[in-house]
Amino acid sequence: MSLQTALDAVADPVRRAIIRELAGHPDWTRACGTFDLPVSKATRSHHFAVLREAGLIEQRDEGARRFNRLRRPEFDAEFPGMLDLILNERPSAG
Amino acid sequence: MSLQTALDAVADPVRRAIIRELAGHPDWTRACGTFDLPVSKATRSHHFAVLREAGLIEQRDEGARRFNRLRRPEFDAEFPGMLDLILNERPSAG
Repeated sequence: MSLQTALDAVADPVRRAIIRELAGHPDWTRACGTFDLPVSKATRSHHFAVLREAGLIEQRDEGARRFNRLRRPEFDAEFPGMLDLILNERPSAG
Repeated sequence: MSLQTALDAVADPVRRAIIRELAGHPDWTRACGTFDLPVSKATRSHHFAVLREAGLIEQRDEGARRFNRLRRPEFDAEFPGMLDLILNERPSAG
């Protein structure tokens, strides 16, 4: 995983919102469809795919639902401090 | 300074190269023109401006030269860990 890929993944505020929401729940309890995001379904799928490809999340399908896990320990080991910056971010109104 | 602004500033590999080079030299010893960067002069100026506007560097003019300081302690205080990730990055060949 390159720093460039990681930075590109977290540069988007919607993706940071997904990360924060996943961090607030136990692993594998949140399906993609349960996130309240201000984007279309296709865009939502894109954001989850970018996070997965960057190694920030892991996904598995159960029936029609796709569940997620934040790869927090793995990411913390690779890029110390980066997730904490995101989790401590106070989202702007915009 | 918002996390979004900071992430946008460091998302570019040329800007990360500038940051690393500044970190390796004493404050105010490096003028913009002395950086060996694979970009045009206008693009170089743009990159320095983005870093300055994000609060990552400080600049002052002496004659025809513009000297730089990495605002390392200020940035470390605001976004702990982010600069270290950049300074520890092994730049790719690309």
